[in-house]
Amino acid sequence: MTSDGRFRIGLLGHGTVGAAFAELLPEHAERIFVLTGLRPELSGVLTRRSGSFDELLERSDLIVELIGGIEPARDYVLRALRTGRHVVTANKQLLSQHGEELWETARSEGVQLRFEGAVAGVVPVIRVLQESLAGARIDRVHGIVNGTTNFILTEMARTGMTFEDALAEAQRLGYAEADPAEDVNGRDAAAKMAILARLAFDTPVHLDQVRYEGIEQIKPDDLEYARELGLGLKLIGTAERIGDGISVRVHPAFLYPGHPLASVNGPFNAVTVESPAITEITMSGPGAGGPQTASAVLGDVISAMIPPASTPPTMSVLEIVQDVVSAFYIHLEVADEPGVLAAVAHVLAQQDVSVKSVVQRGLGDQARLVMVVHAVPESRFAAALEQIAGLEVLRAPPRAIRVLEEEFG
Amino acid sequence: MTSDGRFRIGLLGHGTVGAAFAELLPEHAERIFVLTGLRPELSGVLTRRSGSFDELLERSDLIVELIGGIEPARDYVLRALRTGRHVVTANKQLLSQHGEELWETARSEGVQLRFEGAVAGVVPVIRVLQESLAGARIDRVHGIVNGTTNFILTEMARTGMTFEDALAEAQRLGYAEADPAEDVNGRDAAAKMAILARLAFDTPVHLDQVRYEGIEQIKPDDLEYARELGLGLKLIGTAERIGDGISVRVHPAFLYPGHPLASVNGPFNAVTVESPAITEITMSGPGAGGPQTASAVLGDVISAMIPPASTPPTMSVLEIVQDVVSAFYIHLEVADEPGVLAAVAHVLAQQDVSVKSVVQRGLGDQARLVMVVHAVPESRFAAALEQIAGLEVLRAPPRAIRVLEEEFG
Repeated sequence: MTSDGRFRIGLLGHGTVGAAFAELLPEHAERIFVLTGLRPELSGVLTRRSGSFDELLERSDLIVELIGGIEPARDYVLRALRTGRHVVTANKQLLSQHGEELWETARSEGVQLRFEGAVAGVVPVIRVLQESLAGARIDRVHGIVNGTTNFILTEMARTGMTFEDALAEAQRLGYAEADPAEDVNGRDAAAKMAILARLAFDTPVHLDQVRYEGIEQIKPDDLEYARELGLGLKLIGTAERIGDGISVRVHPAFLYPGHPLASVNGPFNAVTVESPAITEITMSGPGAGGPQTASAVLGDVISAMIPPASTPPTMSVLEIVQDVVSAFYIHLEVADEPGVLAAVAHVLAQQDVSVKSVVQRGLGDQARLVMVVHAVPESRFAAALEQIAGLEVLRAPPRAIRVLEEEFG
Repeated sequence: MTSDGRFRIGLLGHGTVGAAFAELLPEHAERIFVLTGLRPELSGVLTRRSGSFDELLERSDLIVELIGGIEPARDYVLRALRTGRHVVTANKQLLSQHGEELWETARSEGVQLRFEGAVAGVVPVIRVLQESLAGARIDRVHGIVNGTTNFILTEMARTGMTFEDALAEAQRLGYAEADPAEDVNGRDAAAKMAILARLAFDTPVHLDQVRYEGIEQIKPDDLEYARELGLGLKLIGTAERIGDGISVRVHPAFLYPGHPLASVNGPFNAVTVESPAITEITMSGPGAGGPQTASAVLGDVISAMIPPASTPPTMSVLEIVQDVVSAFYIHLEVADEPGVLAAVAHVLAQQDVSVKSVVQRGLGDQARLVMVVHAVPESRFAAALEQIAGLEVLRAPPRAIRVLEEEFG
């Protein structure tokens, strides 16, 4: 780094991820300064049309490679490492085919080569394998590591549409490239699994050693029968120990509903790591979109700038808010007589608490009235509940439990 | 560290986690040497009954604190940091009540204070907040951070049993302590959420500022009505921005089925982190058991020994196995005539492929025969499928898709 505390980042590539990274960096510069003591700045951007790599390298402490593909990315990364620059890349093709050469160069030069963005976007599987589980023996990694195919399979299962129609829908929504071949034929996922297998098992794994099948052959009625059999379909990458060897492969596979990857839908990615000491960890999140991958790249840049040796000082003292907003479930034991629901509803209406659903059941001369109400400030709900508790028709103290209202998936 | 490349670890406490750590360390010493260039060794163990802290400190490069509680843990950790030792701890009480003092001391002494094991065992939420998301603005952290209560709620929902019976069951299976008060009243989860809130928002958060409610009041019929309403019940910790302030709280809450935390069952923990740049990441795994927490502690120790600046060299060249074992779904379009199922079943039996389930449907003069078969070597399945493809009754090429057989949850 320069002596004035600046940390200069040379950016190769200005596509979706590159542009997102160039936008993210200045937004977070101040926070990064507090964390690292260094002021990060873009020293330049090399695109296919403009810029000189040699000049950019000269004025950079770290190179972010977001060009993709093998050459000239490989040449640039090697030259950056050999001149003592840290490199952060999201290039899965490069790492799955020339990883050993790059890692060996980084080791011998004593610089960092980080690549969280190459697999599953911001889902921190690389860091977890390299750091959290650095000491663990890993038996298996299972993953949904291609968001395009997971979106297509989710749509096919949800609507009954064909592969071709679901692919067109994915392209329309920006979840698939104009040329989706490497996504749908499994090669993109295979490159990612080669990288994960290398880290999990400390053995060289080249993309050519990964068997892969895609999802082009999947028919709507496979999904329909699967539902009858209680199964869901995913494109699964597997890297596992078998005897003294390993298997690394990608293929469509049916999952039983309790499987940790079964509920991963739409363009999301997820990875499960199994190890005897820990049973398993599952991590999930949005697959590689521009902002997500850029965020993973930024995390790597910060780690390369200075390893976080300690928890940073507090940056402000935020007020601790007490009266938050919640939805509630209410359970009332009431006399089974006319007007009870009206009385309760009147109290709720007075406090502006809106009812979402009601279940009422008779029970001898008593009844149980169970409601879910929409989100309100908790103080207002408490006031309503106190009034309800005072109603003559109540046969027991009311019970209330919060409901998290956001619906996902 | 010592000049001879040894790295000496002083262990405070020899309970469940401490004993598991003392066992794990020598098992992984060789691998840690490859990663870090240093040979880790236990320099001593301090228990309530034996050992001198001062003597142990003198001969340690790093202190692992697994005593729990406030004193003497606080005194020991402060003295270790002040004499330039890194500290790894899993002590949530200490960090949620005296964290600022400890972090400030670590910063001013330039040593590391790591604490992944304090929250959600081996689920790497601390590292992800501190490193992967170091640059991100975090809006909300939602978590199931107490395995005891999640086990109890899962059992209550599954069997209809009371809180008291489910707690007894948890104690019988080792998922609850003899004195479960801080687990079931929410205080344990509150301590963990205080730590997560501190990291997510860079603001001081003390355990006393966290509102918490437990699960002692939950009745079986709350869970029954909830099922009717399509809801599941969890003990949820929340740390979120509200306006210019934050709210940190723990309470039981109902979740809709699509929520990323809704499918976390039994003693598992899970944390969801929401940030505008990344949408959300969810991480899940077994809660704090001895081996899991010890594994998190070991990951911290390795990171403190030397930040992994590069991907380590490959340690062996493992064979890539081709003929793996898989279960399969088979989809056949066949003539609708007697003996078809028998013919197919005969081929499968010859290859020793065992059928798990069958769905057969007529369709004019054709029928569709869909089967799931148990796991077999793929080469044997391929041979069976080739024979089936040659049967006269086949009306279209057979289709086969793998099924991941393990059932979880």
